[in-house]
Amino acid sequence: MAEPGSAALPARDTAQRFAAGSPRVLVAGATGFAGALAAYLLWRHPGFELVAVTGRSEVGGRLDELYPRYRVPLAIEELRLDRLEGVDAAVVAYPHAAAAPTVGALRERGARVVDLSADFRLGSLATYERWYGAHPRPDLLEQAVYGLPELHRQRIAGAAIVANPGCYPTASVLALAPLARGGLIADVVIDAKQGVSGAGRVYDETTHLSMAAENIVPYKVAAHRHTPEIEEQLAWVSAGGFPGDDHDGGRSLDGSSVAVQFQAHLLPLDQGELASCYVTPTRAVAAAELAERFAVAYDREPFVELVDRPPGVREVRETNFCRIFAAADEHTGKLIVFSAIDNLWKGTSSQAVQNLNVMFALPEGEGLL
Amino acid sequence: MAEPGSAALPARDTAQRFAAGSPRVLVAGATGFAGALAAYLLWRHPGFELVAVTGRSEVGGRLDELYPRYRVPLAIEELRLDRLEGVDAAVVAYPHAAAAPTVGALRERGARVVDLSADFRLGSLATYERWYGAHPRPDLLEQAVYGLPELHRQRIAGAAIVANPGCYPTASVLALAPLARGGLIADVVIDAKQGVSGAGRVYDETTHLSMAAENIVPYKVAAHRHTPEIEEQLAWVSAGGFPGDDHDGGRSLDGSSVAVQFQAHLLPLDQGELASCYVTPTRAVAAAELAERFAVAYDREPFVELVDRPPGVREVRETNFCRIFAAADEHTGKLIVFSAIDNLWKGTSSQAVQNLNVMFALPEGEGLL
Amino acid sequence: MAEPGSAALPARDTAQRFAAGSPRVLVAGATGFAGALAAYLLWRHPGFELVAVTGRSEVGGRLDELYPRYRVPLAIEELRLDRLEGVDAAVVAYPHAAAAPTVGALRERGARVVDLSADFRLGSLATYERWYGAHPRPDLLEQAVYGLPELHRQRIAGAAIVANPGCYPTASVLALAPLARGGLIADVVIDAKQGVSGAGRVYDETTHLSMAAENIVPYKVAAHRHTPEIEEQLAWVSAGGFPGDDHDGGRSLDGSSVAVQFQAHLLPLDQGELASCYVTPTRAVAAAELAERFAVAYDREPFVELVDRPPGVREVRETNFCRIFAAADEHTGKLIVFSAIDNLWKGTSSQAVQNLNVMFALPEGEGLL
Amino acid sequence: MAEPGSAALPARDTAQRFAAGSPRVLVAGATGFAGALAAYLLWRHPGFELVAVTGRSEVGGRLDELYPRYRVPLAIEELRLDRLEGVDAAVVAYPHAAAAPTVGALRERGARVVDLSADFRLGSLATYERWYGAHPRPDLLEQAVYGLPELHRQRIAGAAIVANPGCYPTASVLALAPLARGGLIADVVIDAKQGVSGAGRVYDETTHLSMAAENIVPYKVAAHRHTPEIEEQLAWVSAGGFPGDDHDGGRSLDGSSVAVQFQAHLLPLDQGELASCYVTPTRAVAAAELAERFAVAYDREPFVELVDRPPGVREVRETNFCRIFAAADEHTGKLIVFSAIDNLWKGTSSQAVQNLNVMFALPEGEGLL
Repeated sequence: MAEPGSAALPARDTAQRFAAGSPRVLVAGATGFAGALAAYLLWRHPGFELVAVTGRSEVGGRLDELYPRYRVPLAIEELRLDRLEGVDAAVVAYPHAAAAPTVGALRERGARVVDLSADFRLGSLATYERWYGAHPRPDLLEQAVYGLPELHRQRIAGAAIVANPGCYPTASVLALAPLARGGLIADVVIDAKQGVSGAGRVYDETTHLSMAAENIVPYKVAAHRHTPEIEEQLAWVSAGGFPGDDHDGGRSLDGSSVAVQFQAHLLPLDQGELASCYVTPTRAVAAAELAERFAVAYDREPFVELVDRPPGVREVRETNFCRIFAAADEHTGKLIVFSAIDNLWKGTSSQAVQNLNVMFALPEGEGLL
Repeated sequence: MAEPGSAALPARDTAQRFAAGSPRVLVAGATGFAGALAAYLLWRHPGFELVAVTGRSEVGGRLDELYPRYRVPLAIEELRLDRLEGVDAAVVAYPHAAAAPTVGALRERGARVVDLSADFRLGSLATYERWYGAHPRPDLLEQAVYGLPELHRQRIAGAAIVANPGCYPTASVLALAPLARGGLIADVVIDAKQGVSGAGRVYDETTHLSMAAENIVPYKVAAHRHTPEIEEQLAWVSAGGFPGDDHDGGRSLDGSSVAVQFQAHLLPLDQGELASCYVTPTRAVAAAELAERFAVAYDREPFVELVDRPPGVREVRETNFCRIFAAADEHTGKLIVFSAIDNLWKGTSSQAVQNLNVMFALPEGEGLL
Repeated sequence: MAEPGSAALPARDTAQRFAAGSPRVLVAGATGFAGALAAYLLWRHPGFELVAVTGRSEVGGRLDELYPRYRVPLAIEELRLDRLEGVDAAVVAYPHAAAAPTVGALRERGARVVDLSADFRLGSLATYERWYGAHPRPDLLEQAVYGLPELHRQRIAGAAIVANPGCYPTASVLALAPLARGGLIADVVIDAKQGVSGAGRVYDETTHLSMAAENIVPYKVAAHRHTPEIEEQLAWVSAGGFPGDDHDGGRSLDGSSVAVQFQAHLLPLDQGELASCYVTPTRAVAAAELAERFAVAYDREPFVELVDRPPGVREVRETNFCRIFAAADEHTGKLIVFSAIDNLWKGTSSQAVQNLNVMFALPEGEGLL
Repeated sequence: MAEPGSAALPARDTAQRFAAGSPRVLVAGATGFAGALAAYLLWRHPGFELVAVTGRSEVGGRLDELYPRYRVPLAIEELRLDRLEGVDAAVVAYPHAAAAPTVGALRERGARVVDLSADFRLGSLATYERWYGAHPRPDLLEQAVYGLPELHRQRIAGAAIVANPGCYPTASVLALAPLARGGLIADVVIDAKQGVSGAGRVYDETTHLSMAAENIVPYKVAAHRHTPEIEEQLAWVSAGGFPGDDHDGGRSLDGSSVAVQFQAHLLPLDQGELASCYVTPTRAVAAAELAERFAVAYDREPFVELVDRPPGVREVRETNFCRIFAAADEHTGKLIVFSAIDNLWKGTSSQAVQNLNVMFALPEGEGLL
């Protein structure tokens, strides 16, 4: 309680933490789960100034009313392209196809962009159009880099547009890249599971607690949009792609393509994602070699943790970490890799901040640890 | 409220429903999740008289105190083998190895037994001993029939001992049998997920809500005891086994064995199990053939439901149904089969009652619909 | 699997269970949670024929697609008032104000009605209009009886319209009636908690798992529509109302009115409701008297269970039971009563079936045990 | 992945954040939920050096194996009282009665202590012994201050022993203090609800997901140990106690004592606590006065948030905030106050860190925002 003589009581801390001169960042689409979390992470980030949060709905409301827990005390504004003076970067959290025109407009005003949609993830325009329809801004594709820092860190550092990966590809590609490298994957099944936050702030029978709790449901059988994204990245890795070489963000090297069997499931939880990967290797791989491959790939990665027992998604909840466990099954000869992330964090918004850190030469874990 | 003139008010209904002359059944091990549910189902079953519930703990307490929702108003007794006069059948819900001696003792007193443990599930004694250690009563193995009615109905009808299948094998074998028949399975990955009730009334970090909720964890990687059980049954089916032919309960026919990649995961829910099966077929299988195969196998099965979209486990919660959806993936050429059950019902206790119905020539769905 | 020689295999049991000559019942509004559950309970009820399920949306679809678990294989029809020939009774599951006109139309065609809305629950038209606006059919009020069988069984038996109680009043009035009788309540706080199914098939931020899970939220502070319903019933009981005397369904007796402090909370679960009631008594009440009062009131009630420890809502999940525990607190002199029900069952749909059983002189627990 | 030329990649950040010369802190009992969280908060705190985590079990293991998500890479040690040289402070997370002797030993070696047990919370030794049995170290009572910074900040600043409040008293006293001040509480019911983490790392039927999920259960009816703790604090406030005056930590002022009706409930969630308080005031209190009272009390408190709608516990999850909403009910004349905290954070461990901040003159929100 307010004490009579408590003039020294620190005022409530609702200020941003950024240092003077920090890059100025805007979040477009901050009313959805992904945008709101990006706003939260940037608000408390010591290296960025969050200058505005915009929404296509809820304009005039405050973000901390919509997302009380994040406590970002900013009004939700309309995105005014004529007021982008001095904005250094933007996170765009729009749906597919809606994102690209806004990304383009932001680019034209000089901002570097991390785009959370699928619009710039795929190197192949034909593949994009098969899954998403006509691309609104194919001219921008060549400016874009696939935003998985563990694969494309050097190109991300200089990118104008970073295509933030899908959450399923993040978990899947991190799980499989050490095997794709060297062409060890003859066949692969990815059985992926994710909490309902993956669907976003969508109100329907898939997210209503009375239907979603005490349930698990497979969805998009044999037809998930994330499949080609995973395949493109694995092909690039299998073709010998290394970050040091990534002159084209992993898009032109024609790796030996593996048709990935990817299946998504909806879990009765909020945030969390597990990819269980079953690989038939092109040759026998002993446990020691398996461990060595993952160690070489990830021992110095700040946000990939190799663990010695299967990870639960709670272990990475609300963190930017990806936990990976790999094992060889002597009975079947297959290799099994589990990869756990928080779909909203490393799978989306904290990875966007990791990318911003790389883009602006900040310590990669700044604001994320 | 008690009305002054309410003499006609029906007394509270806490009576069993059985018809006079019904077979008398005992549940041994009724204090665990599986035994308690079996007791509940038999208590309200019109075709069986539940004569006693026994426990290795909690003796003297009442089952409806331990499991209030089931409302079985019986005292928990010690199992007295000298008081089994007139017991026609027993459900034994003991852990592995502890079950077999009791099954033997019950057999010697004339009772037919449905055993919920793994002790009589495997045809191969060597396989049993590799996974579970020395078998306490190998002499009884030849009396036992594998209790999956959809495969072995005719032999179950006459069996002295019915080895109730494991929950994972129930979902998995039902999903795969239509493909194993005809030898269509070249390779298979079963990614199975189950609620925490599968671990039983075990109190540890895997079942504590603070660890189990908002989580999913793979367990027993490359080493699950249910794998050989699934492999044995699929081998039998692939060898041409049909219920009409099941002279040996599926144990001697030497089917073309497939090494099954089976992986279990713990879900943040109570009851429910989903097996997601990914089959590399030995030849291309078109969607129409796939549908036909499943229809032939299950159209007349009372407890298998073929559905036209992926099933959620809520759809079968607290039922004896198994819901199956099968699809062909043109992209990979694989076949995908989802199979959803309630691990405690069709996966365990209601399947035991289904077996008892078959054993005592009652309508198969009696007490289960 | 279909056996070659399995001609004897019982066809899948998708038939209703009703006996020939059973009353014919219709469920109007079967697409919501309450109507769907009523349809399920009536479908498997041996004493009623479910002749149709109607909806204001989803017409042409099937109820078992919308609610797979209930397995009611009926098409959802439009309600055609010109086709009600031979319909003996209807359950109307419409929102407030929308219900009354349909109830009227059904009455005019001769059907007896159990109405799940609030339209006929309140004896005072003025009170109704204060909370719900103009009443569409005030002329029907005098035909209606408040459908809490424990209070008004005799009048329900002969009623044309039964106003099924709200879920909160069901739990609250059952908890407090033994104290209201005799005027023991000087002051009362009801702190009630309910799962998200209470909001029905409504898709918004209160039911989205990402907001509702790991949460508890009070709602409608100092302004819940169920308050006057509870107060009316307690006033009637405190005025000496007994089922044997209930010439007016508890509406005209002017009991000593207590202003009830009622507060609702949203729980992170699907089905379940707990009313925690804190009573300041008008005089000291010893534990023995307290127990005696509840025993007298409920010992012969088929669906009220007096228990000797605080009940959890799991104990009554998917049952028509109400579990009550009462205690006296020596420290404060207050009486504490906990009352647990399933809000969709005893709180709504199974209570509707209990009422139908009473109305049609069937055993009160028929189809509910 | 490790890049060929990635020498600049920052090493994984597993270091503590403390500044040179920070006070050195030990956590005793770090293997329980409360101690582990305190260790996590101190590990990443820029103003404290966490020198050791000790346990009464799991010695030799690592804390980040037991609590992976917290990522505190320290070995769990035995508490060696002979090695406390240079330890400035300790958080003791032991059960009641076990704590006091260790607190004493730590004091004798010069460390200031925040004790999470109940051993030093009550001013009245007689009250302590009625609820907990003989006190192991009554001689230390006079060194102890009740650790609710909002009431006793000034005394905490200089305290040798801080008795960290119980989680229920934290939420309850913060909710009611603005009304107790001035003697406005004639009667009060506190209906409190808490997630299962409140029980700690205890494995039994109250925490098993199969029993705890989809449930809510009242417990300790008319007999909760936290009642006298709440009553003592409210009495002190009602006697005119102000932090500026708190010469005795709220223990000797003889406030007008109100017998508090406190009731706890177990919620089906992990972390979160809500106290719903129903106050019969000693005189009519209008809405404006109510708002003014809470504003005066808390507007400058860094961790109390007054909100204008009822708070859900998600809004404060994993924060040190307490959210409060107060309303007057015109219908009953009662005042209703809801208070939401995270039982493990503000209810336990982050409040301990808040106390340490006050004790060592750090900014009160350091390490907590």
